Amino acid sequence: MSTATRAATDVAAMRRALELAERGPARGVNPRVGCVILSPDGDVLAEGWHRGAGTPHAEVDALSTLPPGAARGATAIVTLEPCNHTGRTGPCAHALVDAGIARVVYAVDDPGDHSAGGARTLRRAGVEVVAGVLADEVGAFLEDWLFAARHRRPRVTVKWASSLDGRAAAADGTSRWITGPEARADVHLRRAASDAIAVGTGTVLTDDPALTARDADGELFENQPVPVVFGRREVPSGAALERHPHEAIRMAGTDLAADLAELQRRGIRSLFIEGGPKLASSFLAAGLADEVLVYLAPALIGGPRTAVDDLGVATIADALRYDFTDLVRLGDDLLVVARPRAAAHHDIPTHGRA
Amino acid sequence: MSTATRAATDVAAMRRALELAERGPARGVNPRVGCVILSPDGDVLAEGWHRGAGTPHAEVDALSTLPPGAARGATAIVTLEPCNHTGRTGPCAHALVDAGIARVVYAVDDPGDHSAGGARTLRRAGVEVVAGVLADEVGAFLEDWLFAARHRRPRVTVKWASSLDGRAAAADGTSRWITGPEARADVHLRRAASDAIAVGTGTVLTDDPALTARDADGELFENQPVPVVFGRREVPSGAALERHPHEAIRMAGTDLAADLAELQRRGIRSLFIEGGPKLASSFLAAGLADEVLVYLAPALIGGPRTAVDDLGVATIADALRYDFTDLVRLGDDLLVVARPRAAAHHDIPTHGRA
Ligand SMILES: NC(=O)c1ccc[n+]([C@@H]2O[C@H](COP(=O)([O-])OP(=O)(O)OC[C@H]3O[C@@H](n4cnc5c(N)ncnc54)[C@H](OP(=O)(O)O)[C@@H]3O)[C@@H](O)[C@H]2O)c1
Ligand SMILES: NC(=O)c1ccc[n+]([C@@H]2O[C@H](COP(=O)([O-])OP(=O)(O)OC[C@H]3O[C@@H](n4cnc5c(N)ncnc54)[C@H](OP(=O)(O)O)[C@@H]3O)[C@@H](O)[C@H]2O)c1
Repeated sequence: MSTATRAATDVAAMRRALELAERGPARGVNPRVGCVILSPDGDVLAEGWHRGAGTPHAEVDALSTLPPGAARGATAIVTLEPCNHTGRTGPCAHALVDAGIARVVYAVDDPGDHSAGGARTLRRAGVEVVAGVLADEVGAFLEDWLFAARHRRPRVTVKWASSLDGRAAAADGTSRWITGPEARADVHLRRAASDAIAVGTGTVLTDDPALTARDADGELFENQPVPVVFGRREVPSGAALERHPHEAIRMAGTDLAADLAELQRRGIRSLFIEGGPKLASSFLAAGLADEVLVYLAPALIGGPRTAVDDLGVATIADALRYDFTDLVRLGDDLLVVARPRAAAHHDIPTHGRA
Repeated sequence: MSTATRAATDVAAMRRALELAERGPARGVNPRVGCVILSPDGDVLAEGWHRGAGTPHAEVDALSTLPPGAARGATAIVTLEPCNHTGRTGPCAHALVDAGIARVVYAVDDPGDHSAGGARTLRRAGVEVVAGVLADEVGAFLEDWLFAARHRRPRVTVKWASSLDGRAAAADGTSRWITGPEARADVHLRRAASDAIAVGTGTVLTDDPALTARDADGELFENQPVPVVFGRREVPSGAALERHPHEAIRMAGTDLAADLAELQRRGIRSLFIEGGPKLASSFLAAGLADEVLVYLAPALIGGPRTAVDDLGVATIADALRYDFTDLVRLGDDLLVVARPRAAAHHDIPTHGRA
């Protein structure tokens, strides 16, 4: 094969590997990975994908469909760098070497502490390794998992709805509805796209929220975020939360970084914080919000019920600084998306893929 | 002349009348008005414009340049409906009739209580009257004056700068600079475009503001708004305000509607309220803000120093509702422009042009 033909074959096979990866479970501690084994002539010998923690990795899954010796001299196309560590399934780098694979093409590096280094192991064993094929597409597909793996915690979005003057409710506590149906629909879509959705016990006790992701008719979307409740107070029996398709995870909230690390270990890659003001403010003040979504209504309310409480900002130089990364008109309302200016992520050491 | 030729001649002469109007003083209780007198063949016989209260109106100014009888059968092209009342200069409608003018073409109706009706007086005297020629252009040119004349008060803009969570300062009161240079430059341009700029005594005593409109180098723009200070406390001697090119107007602030009516009588057509929070909140709560400008910084501050205080909104249904009419990125910041949803203007009866 010419170099150009080979490159085109690699890309086509990587696109197929990405399709295979998409068959895996969207949630869980492990990434979705796909693998295609090509003969030296570029014919597809085998396909595989990862079905979740405790099952074979994609490379091993693909190899397992071949008779012994059939992969000798072949190319493995895999969406993620083959792992190097001995988890529940043994390192894939070794499995590929043992099977006689001559060439490995992958899209994105494995960011795991323990698992990374698969490419090095392969090269040392004489395998030709090509990295970065379709890296952008695969990187986007794995975005949340990569973030969580790199930072050892879920990506945290803090959301609130407020009037233009920063109030979440009127003096008597009423707040339904500050924003309009388009803004609320947007929130439900983002809930559905998140692994988990968090509130404080204050909101549970006041609002009895369902914490489901619903369409305009109140029908549940297919993907439902896992509800997470921060705080020590009990969720009252009969609460709407008990009817959620997923059982709620309880977190004390006294050490948010540790709680986030625990959520990542439990497979939560993205966490959508819905409030109330106390919980949201804690995440903001701790520098643990990777994204802030403010749904601004064209209204003024004034008075005591601010959407954000105290943030420990004593003087203006200590203000938490962000960048506005997106502005979206939603009906009469405005969604302002902001990201921390200095990408100061708080990493928590923990383990790689299981 | 054919009808089409006449219409084209009218428009051309109106454009010239608008140019003449622009020579008048931008500020003051009277509008800027221009007038062109055309012979029946469309030749320019005379031009005139209004130079401010106490001087002849544009029509009289133009007629005064002609020998007696020279305007007989002529057409007067004037940007504003000729006045009907006897002010310091006598009604223009009568002056036009007395001069033998056969036809009057004007752009916008005079909204004044006492002065309107000039067109009716002219028609009753047998003069042909054409209204609405170049009405949009002239209307835009006279926008502030028309607003003030119709509502018997200046057009009020309430402006503040805040963090995304609605704070105007950190806990210790520091606020320089929440927003960046582009936002501050925009504020100075809008100051320069306003007749007057208002603050409460709280801001005067805390910040000692200059209340001038300056460019990035601190140089004064040509147009300087008149400073207005609301409140009963003294402005300390030696305050920066004393060095302002205009003497400050003092207003008690106990009856904002009456204060605004008084400002309109003093020729203030547009008022730019710069705060602080107490004064701004009073104008908002009274429904006296025609436009709200919020310069939002991509920052979170939290804590007690909200940009807007109490607005008397007890329950969510009473929230003050606006429409977002404009969103402007200014460097890192965002300017949100909002206008009251129900255009509920609070009219105050008073007098017409002097
Ligand atoms: N506008 C909006 O977008 C929006 C969204 C949600 C809620 N709300 C409103 O917010 C109100 C409730 O607000 P809230 O601030 O009192 O309730 P909250 O933030 O939901 O809950 C606060 C409670 O969470 C627990 N908690 C655990 N870890 C925490 C931590 N790290 N930081 C802070 N709290 C932690 C504490 O309770 P324990 O004592 O149990 O540990 C704390 O009292 C309701 O009226 C609701 O309607 C508005
Ligand atoms: N971020 C911003 O955009 C911005 C802008 C300006 C100021 N600020 C900050 O705001 C702080 C001052 O705020 P503030 O609210 O105390 O001062 P303020 O609104 O400037 O002044 C309030 C005072 O104005 C007088 N007043 C007269 N008529 C009034 C009315 N109808 N409603 C309310 N007040 C009326 C009263 O004083 P009398 O007792 O004298 O009658 C009142 O105490 C300063 O720290 C300043 O730095 C921020």
